[in-house]
Amino acid sequence: MLHDPELHYLDNAATTIVAPEVADVIDKAMREHWANPSSLYAPGARSEEVLNAARAAVARTLGCKSKELYFTSCGSEGNNLALLGAAQTRTFGKGIVMSGFEHPSVQRPLERLAAQGYNVTVVKPQADGTLDINKMLDAVDKNTILVACMMVNNEIGTRNDVERLAADVKRRNSRTIVHVDAVQAWMRVPIKLDNIDTMTVSGHKIHAPKGIGALYLSDRLVQAFQPPYLGGEQERGLRPGTENLPYALGLAAAATRLAGSIKSRDKAVRALNDRLRAGLSVFPEVEINSPAGAVPEVLNFSENCIKSETMLAWLSEKQIYVSSASACGRGQPSHTLAAMGRDPLAIDTAIRVSFCADNTPEDVDAFLERFEDGMKHLQRIKK
Amino acid sequence: MLHDPELHYLDNAATTIVAPEVADVIDKAMREHWANPSSLYAPGARSEEVLNAARAAVARTLGCKSKELYFTSCGSEGNNLALLGAAQTRTFGKGIVMSGFEHPSVQRPLERLAAQGYNVTVVKPQADGTLDINKMLDAVDKNTILVACMMVNNEIGTRNDVERLAADVKRRNSRTIVHVDAVQAWMRVPIKLDNIDTMTVSGHKIHAPKGIGALYLSDRLVQAFQPPYLGGEQERGLRPGTENLPYALGLAAAATRLAGSIKSRDKAVRALNDRLRAGLSVFPEVEINSPAGAVPEVLNFSENCIKSETMLAWLSEKQIYVSSASACGRGQPSHTLAAMGRDPLAIDTAIRVSFCADNTPEDVDAFLERFEDGMKHLQRIKK
Repeated sequence: MLHDPELHYLDNAATTIVAPEVADVIDKAMREHWANPSSLYAPGARSEEVLNAARAAVARTLGCKSKELYFTSCGSEGNNLALLGAAQTRTFGKGIVMSGFEHPSVQRPLERLAAQGYNVTVVKPQADGTLDINKMLDAVDKNTILVACMMVNNEIGTRNDVERLAADVKRRNSRTIVHVDAVQAWMRVPIKLDNIDTMTVSGHKIHAPKGIGALYLSDRLVQAFQPPYLGGEQERGLRPGTENLPYALGLAAAATRLAGSIKSRDKAVRALNDRLRAGLSVFPEVEINSPAGAVPEVLNFSENCIKSETMLAWLSEKQIYVSSASACGRGQPSHTLAAMGRDPLAIDTAIRVSFCADNTPEDVDAFLERFEDGMKHLQRIKK
Repeated sequence: MLHDPELHYLDNAATTIVAPEVADVIDKAMREHWANPSSLYAPGARSEEVLNAARAAVARTLGCKSKELYFTSCGSEGNNLALLGAAQTRTFGKGIVMSGFEHPSVQRPLERLAAQGYNVTVVKPQADGTLDINKMLDAVDKNTILVACMMVNNEIGTRNDVERLAADVKRRNSRTIVHVDAVQAWMRVPIKLDNIDTMTVSGHKIHAPKGIGALYLSDRLVQAFQPPYLGGEQERGLRPGTENLPYALGLAAAATRLAGSIKSRDKAVRALNDRLRAGLSVFPEVEINSPAGAVPEVLNFSENCIKSETMLAWLSEKQIYVSSASACGRGQPSHTLAAMGRDPLAIDTAIRVSFCADNTPEDVDAFLERFEDGMKHLQRIKK
């Protein structure tokens, strides 16, 4: 990895390493663009100008208008802001449909809405880790105000056809809002916003720092949108607070840096994924949890022998860093594997390897070598 | 000012210039502490360790426990989070009391609560710009769940005795929550948290970047607290989202840098304020809006001759930057002066000069010289 051949960072779905050129942009912006973008004098106007240029650059990578792009402090904020603000724009019904493997920042706000009287239908992923889009659609009726479906699952890499889902949801009910959490998808797969109303992305999954994200909010929704937080007129009054100009510029730099290379990075990462799969195939106990058609960035498997935490500690002794589930859960058992109906042993021994294009075959080989040693030497779970 | 003798930045209540040593800390953190603080391997643990050290450092400057200090993305978020989350912890009544010159990120969420059935009493500042604490107390009864009062007003610098207010509120009703917006007070005046339940501060008023703030939330409230946004377990589950580690370290550096010099900076800034007042005293039309006892950082006055925007543009031609009201209002007329009952001419010709300790007598003199020229040459408002 970056600057250190001894480091094998294979947990890019948890967070990515800030790209040096992105850090350079932020450092420069912190020192140069000191004025408040809301101030009316020349340095304030310059701050506003570079902020809006950053907004346009990020919007371009999503294919939306600049004014439909709102800076947030993270993906979790974006999801809460979008869901809570958008739900209130629809008063014709109380129906909500969400997939059963959403990020907690989607799942938990919608659970709260359920407690407040909304009818929330949860469509679980299938045993193979895919989501049956038709089951999502079957749950949509004239009372459905909102459908939430992530584009790429953070734990197993499932790629959901949200474009088709959105189009078919609108055919069933043109007033239903479609929200897409694209935090793991952005800059990994192409995105088309047709029929999607709100979409969240995050900087720290694309080599920008933690602490910046963006929300696409269709102008169709903006007039009735009820921002949960109120205050100043920043971000068209929907997200108050003096804008984080340095990180907004960093987000634009990170997105621009990757926008032209989605295909070539996909190919490079797919080769790493294939190499890892080939290496794992010699272990009879290993079962792959990531479905066919998953993004190559994520490979989740259960080794069915050794507790995840034991294996993770073993790997980390050699600076090989992977995870068992979402980082947000801090070592909690995977809620995605549970939703898939995997058995407790598979859940307790799950490993998520997640790549970025900076990873190398040597990272995979270092993982496989240490993993093999671990499978030989670590204490096995008593069945 | 910093590195540029031609720049006279006198709008420090709108935002401050990032201190180079704070930018250095952030730049280093972006490049070094790349791991997600929630990750369980060694680099993640190191991220968590430095994040918690930053938390402890900021907490020390407020005199609270480290676990009572939550990082936010800005003061506005902190105010919304505190008010919306805390109001729901109290079900014994619907009374809320707030001062009439709160920041919009306090005022507007409370107005929304009023629309939802809470009884919100607004206590206006007096004609001299001070707030009568006794009037706030008179409005507190057994049904009052929340009192909100800023510590230092952002537009005119009024210093409110929130410590006394908090103590007397608790004497009247021990279950009433006291919220203090200390965004303009932090590192300018000493803060005592006794009897205060929630307090917000912001980084970009103390030479950290825009995009980071902190919320003190008393452990008395935490169990019943209802976070408006839900998701991961970061910030004790009350503020989801992967933590902005570089800026958290920057906030700690900015606070630590200033914590020992409140008195000496106050003295230096008071000399600048006195110099400005002396210079303004030769203009018979000028009326000072800042009350006696205001913090020296802010001097607000009405020149009663020339529209604020005309004077501001005139000053800015010589790189002298001041404002007419809060930056968040983007040139809107001052809501504080309106609440004080000032006449339209005074409001339309108001100027806010706001200092930091990096300002110099030369900055004041440059302002006065250009202001005098403006008073002579600019077109006067027809009365």
